[in-house]
Amino acid sequence: MSTEIASLGEFGLIDRLTKDIKLQNQSSKYGIGDDAAVLSYPDKEVLVATDILMEGVHFDLVYTPLMHLGYKSAIVNFSDIYAMNGKPKQITVSIALGKRFQVEDIEAFYEGVKIACKEHQVDIIGGDTTSSFTGLAISITCIGEAKKEDIVYRTGAKNTDLICVSGNLGAAYMGLQLLEREKEVFKGSKNPQPDFAGKEYILERQLRPRARKDIIEALEKAKIKPTSMMDVSDGLSSELMHICTQSNVGCRVFEENLPIDYQTALMAEEFNMNVTTCAMNGGEDYELLFTVPISDHEKIIQIEDIRLIGHITEAKLNTILVTRDNQEMELKAQGWNPLKNNKDTE
Amino acid sequence: MSTEIASLGEFGLIDRLTKDIKLQNQSSKYGIGDDAAVLSYPDKEVLVATDILMEGVHFDLVYTPLMHLGYKSAIVNFSDIYAMNGKPKQITVSIALGKRFQVEDIEAFYEGVKIACKEHQVDIIGGDTTSSFTGLAISITCIGEAKKEDIVYRTGAKNTDLICVSGNLGAAYMGLQLLEREKEVFKGSKNPQPDFAGKEYILERQLRPRARKDIIEALEKAKIKPTSMMDVSDGLSSELMHICTQSNVGCRVFEENLPIDYQTALMAEEFNMNVTTCAMNGGEDYELLFTVPISDHEKIIQIEDIRLIGHITEAKLNTILVTRDNQEMELKAQGWNPLKNNKDTE
Repeated sequence: MSTEIASLGEFGLIDRLTKDIKLQNQSSKYGIGDDAAVLSYPDKEVLVATDILMEGVHFDLVYTPLMHLGYKSAIVNFSDIYAMNGKPKQITVSIALGKRFQVEDIEAFYEGVKIACKEHQVDIIGGDTTSSFTGLAISITCIGEAKKEDIVYRTGAKNTDLICVSGNLGAAYMGLQLLEREKEVFKGSKNPQPDFAGKEYILERQLRPRARKDIIEALEKAKIKPTSMMDVSDGLSSELMHICTQSNVGCRVFEENLPIDYQTALMAEEFNMNVTTCAMNGGEDYELLFTVPISDHEKIIQIEDIRLIGHITEAKLNTILVTRDNQEMELKAQGWNPLKNNKDTE
Repeated sequence: MSTEIASLGEFGLIDRLTKDIKLQNQSSKYGIGDDAAVLSYPDKEVLVATDILMEGVHFDLVYTPLMHLGYKSAIVNFSDIYAMNGKPKQITVSIALGKRFQVEDIEAFYEGVKIACKEHQVDIIGGDTTSSFTGLAISITCIGEAKKEDIVYRTGAKNTDLICVSGNLGAAYMGLQLLEREKEVFKGSKNPQPDFAGKEYILERQLRPRARKDIIEALEKAKIKPTSMMDVSDGLSSELMHICTQSNVGCRVFEENLPIDYQTALMAEEFNMNVTTCAMNGGEDYELLFTVPISDHEKIIQIEDIRLIGHITEAKLNTILVTRDNQEMELKAQGWNPLKNNKDTE
């Protein structure tokens, strides 16, 4: 038997590998299937999220300074913990590197990790440092904490809930497109001087993303507990489908409500791309996508930087994007696929 | 500034990267510097160990079946938790793989992880599956539990303590040498039929190591709490130096007391290698190295498969191997070095 991984896709592969896994230990409360796993101890719920990042797949050192890479590697894991409505507390940092790296390179990477940790009050508690014959590989595991009653899974969205998203979407993706274009332009040039003036915001979104601790704190302060939540790492479309599948509901989101930054829109135009497609499928925004009961409407609209983009429906009504001209389009699943560049799927 | 990593070595690099790290969070009890980090919750101590394994550095798929690789990847992390006198409970499994792999390959890898988990009652709670443009990369994080009073660090060895090691040493290293030799012999051959008859034990030690749960249970049953403990992953010599440095003591171990299997000795002879060097520096044995107070002597000698190899001394007496002909040799530090093949350092 020989089955191409591409025929299953990322999520199909994970399903197949993990379908027979049953949790046995008392402290194993929730395993595969959310942003983080949940461990349960007598007085504390502990969250665990992990990521592996490979050179050439997840980052390109031509335009990614190592300090930014360290920062981002940590941030994306903090984001997974916030997406469970928890607080990140510890990380382990594992790195495999080849001969071309110097001590100062690794120090720069660690410096970035440390800056992220300082911003989010997270401790580096361990890791592994080893050599690689090929590219750079990074693996980070983040441990967070939450009260049992505070944890938000992907499974709790209910019919009529409001769908909310923080910040704006598609900017990180447009930043990546810009970096890729400039890389092509300056290939072979010894002193490339790419012109990024006026495009700093989308570059920052790609190279130095935020984890939305502020949103978690604002929700806590407003006494709103989302019914479901995820962070937007693979693209809004993909994440919405996760929530709908796992909550057994449908959704309607409205194109006109999607939060898109001016620079993102401008850049999409320059590239002749559909900005809605970028916002729906772009990925790496690390914004929070969540649902709240309709009774929280008054409270939620008072929180800054949160946009209502639609609402949850019954499952039989499907996962729908309503376009500006009132067309209904069914959302498409995205995910990693080894035969495609996952940054280029549209 | 540009500093070669080789000029610092693995431990020097880790020191430099982590020297200014201070733990801030209440639950962060112990960070970098032992087999696992320790998190402290009101009613539970939680252990965290992590590893990153790279194709070509840590494993060679020419002679490592993927199921064995999965098994070993899990076991080496369980071993780190046992080395803290804890019990492994959960793992996350992250894997980055290229196009040459089929679904069945990854299933075989996961099957190995699952067998290890079943043997040790560990739950798979999450992970990350992604693509790689280069080789296979694996990162596993293991979470364990222990009572606060049971955890054993590297720092507690005291003058006159007995030094104990489980099982035998150098076998995994000799297994690796054998596999490497057969690989060379059969290079280019389409249907290699290497002759491993009579050498099954050392191959098993390399390809299917054990994590010494049984020893932890036996110590518990005998009511012995070691004063310090580590697992032997980088070689006895390196681990003894860690314990002595971190406990601020010295040691004397006796060549004639080193536990060496018959197959290991035979293979070393065949390769014209010094078997003591293999036992001291071989690595990957995943046996437990620990110290107990001299008052536990009667109890410890009644436990099967534990050998007394020496004793702890004052720090000023150094870390010494006493040879069969009564020579005193100072132990040498080992560790990963990117400019050498770390399997070949002697």
